[in-house]
Amino acid sequence: MEIKKNLLPADKLQPKPKDENALGFGRIFADHLFAMDYEEGKGWINARIDPYGPIALDPAALVLHYGQEVFEGMKAYYGKDGGVYLFRPEANIKRMANSCARLCMPAPDKDIFLEGLMELLRTEKGWIPKAPGTSLYIRPNMIATEAALGVKVSDNYLFYIMVGPVGAYYPEGFAPTKIYVEEKYVRAAPGGLGEAKTAANYAASLFAGEKAHEEGYTQVLWLDACDKKTIEEVGTSNMFFVIDGEVTTAPLDGTILPGITRDSAITLCKHWNIPVSERKITIDEVIKAQEDGRLDEAFGSGTAAVISPVGSFTYRGQEIPVGKGETGDISRRLYDEITGIQWGERPDPFGWVTKVC
Amino acid sequence: MEIKKNLLPADKLQPKPKDENALGFGRIFADHLFAMDYEEGKGWINARIDPYGPIALDPAALVLHYGQEVFEGMKAYYGKDGGVYLFRPEANIKRMANSCARLCMPAPDKDIFLEGLMELLRTEKGWIPKAPGTSLYIRPNMIATEAALGVKVSDNYLFYIMVGPVGAYYPEGFAPTKIYVEEKYVRAAPGGLGEAKTAANYAASLFAGEKAHEEGYTQVLWLDACDKKTIEEVGTSNMFFVIDGEVTTAPLDGTILPGITRDSAITLCKHWNIPVSERKITIDEVIKAQEDGRLDEAFGSGTAAVISPVGSFTYRGQEIPVGKGETGDISRRLYDEITGIQWGERPDPFGWVTKVC
Repeated sequence: MEIKKNLLPADKLQPKPKDENALGFGRIFADHLFAMDYEEGKGWINARIDPYGPIALDPAALVLHYGQEVFEGMKAYYGKDGGVYLFRPEANIKRMANSCARLCMPAPDKDIFLEGLMELLRTEKGWIPKAPGTSLYIRPNMIATEAALGVKVSDNYLFYIMVGPVGAYYPEGFAPTKIYVEEKYVRAAPGGLGEAKTAANYAASLFAGEKAHEEGYTQVLWLDACDKKTIEEVGTSNMFFVIDGEVTTAPLDGTILPGITRDSAITLCKHWNIPVSERKITIDEVIKAQEDGRLDEAFGSGTAAVISPVGSFTYRGQEIPVGKGETGDISRRLYDEITGIQWGERPDPFGWVTKVC
Repeated sequence: MEIKKNLLPADKLQPKPKDENALGFGRIFADHLFAMDYEEGKGWINARIDPYGPIALDPAALVLHYGQEVFEGMKAYYGKDGGVYLFRPEANIKRMANSCARLCMPAPDKDIFLEGLMELLRTEKGWIPKAPGTSLYIRPNMIATEAALGVKVSDNYLFYIMVGPVGAYYPEGFAPTKIYVEEKYVRAAPGGLGEAKTAANYAASLFAGEKAHEEGYTQVLWLDACDKKTIEEVGTSNMFFVIDGEVTTAPLDGTILPGITRDSAITLCKHWNIPVSERKITIDEVIKAQEDGRLDEAFGSGTAAVISPVGSFTYRGQEIPVGKGETGDISRRLYDEITGIQWGERPDPFGWVTKVC
């Protein structure tokens, strides 16, 4: 498909942020986005680079009432050699297709998705920050646009990719997080939408997240919907535990997001001959391990933070400290290796890195 | 709050639908809507009647990514005396406030909500259809509009009320529905969003709903998320069973929508001294009752259909017929009474009907 370019004239472009140490996350957006439309019977049409600006939606657009929506999160960044890189974009494209299937939505063709993304990145190369740890966050989003108030699968969709510079996640080095173990509220149940990257899971997380933030916690650890014992995931990350030297994380059984950083961490552990298992682990097992001095490390994995070490869990009013209160060896090694591969400082034996330009 | 009126000139108004027997549902919208904005620190501002038209949203608007949204469904209609009426609008306003609390959203002030709705109805009185059983469907909707890609509670919102004429639900009389009992997919879990009228629950229902429609069923009956045994609700309705003359429906324990028609049906049964109980009922109990010849009736309750008799349930490949395959006495009596009260044909002992003009 040909991509039409509706570019702003040079004098209409926004100034780039001056301070790359104050970018924050998800507040600054580049001058253009990639977009295309889906119409029942026509398929994907109108691939284009458009100026970033308001989307006009009918007040009855299905996304505004029934949440038919899926998204992705990726990053582009400057490598050591001055080239622009992506990390495992094909994995995000595949996951979005899986999310689409769960939400009864037509997946964007993978070649057009990647081509549109590449074209946008070439157009907005000037928005990719250069300070250490910074990157250009990429948000592919797809929304149901048909105007209808009956609950139905939409006939029409808008797919767009927006980008914006984001700051380093750990400008002052790793800061172990405090996690609240949630027993009352639930993110996703078996048979629900937990494995899809879709609005509903995030809407379900807001109330418990607000409560945890007010009480000084960084994130909420979700337990399974039924017994409230099995560990699922942490807010925007998958969760790993290192117990007796074994790395353990929840299996992909439908209620948790199949994280791409999660997969990268598992792959690297296997590559290093570190025992790693994807199995159900309960909060009781974690508490017992801590009591026995066997809870070496705990960390989250996700696109934004890559690896996020956990300092403590709070469960039923009791604080469960992790390891020695410092970032563990495996957490550090995974962070260094994944970011090293991303930035081209280390070899890329799995072919994870894709050069944009 | 003063409501600003931005009305279209008479020559810009759409023609009204000519055939009131072909209105369908949720496809035709009146010329104007009521809207107001919420800004953190300012509260609700800019109450207005605007021409119906596209809403301009930032591509990063939180509703488009994380589903922070709540809505309601109501109807306005002509009564027997030629007046325009609403049915229990204060109950919808209260439910929307409860939905807002669950989604961390500021509830619209109830007086402004009702005033805005009344002003819109007076403006669009010409859109209320007159054919028997038709009405003006009312959709209050509230969406998170802040532009931010970090998962957060929005600082800004848009609240709007849109209206449109809808057809009679049973133009040819009651048609008992075929219901598919869903064992794999889940609508809502304890600790989830089930009792809020919010996008996430509808997004979760799409896949199973599509599958059921393809196989010829009208609706999906949801079971509880954990044991898949306890009956929750049917798609867009609450579910009632009449067993041995007792009317039973699921209790409001957090996973089902607290239906206003559900409450009206319970109130009327009590008023008539028909035994009615809000308690957990399992699909096994329904099957056993049917086998013993004690399953007299089953029906859904909701704003659109009012009362929707069920002809059969299909569970694990077996069809469970209900009663004698005809609409039961209690289903019929509730339908006649509620619609009779709505249309002003019967006395209104509970003060459910509100005159608009």
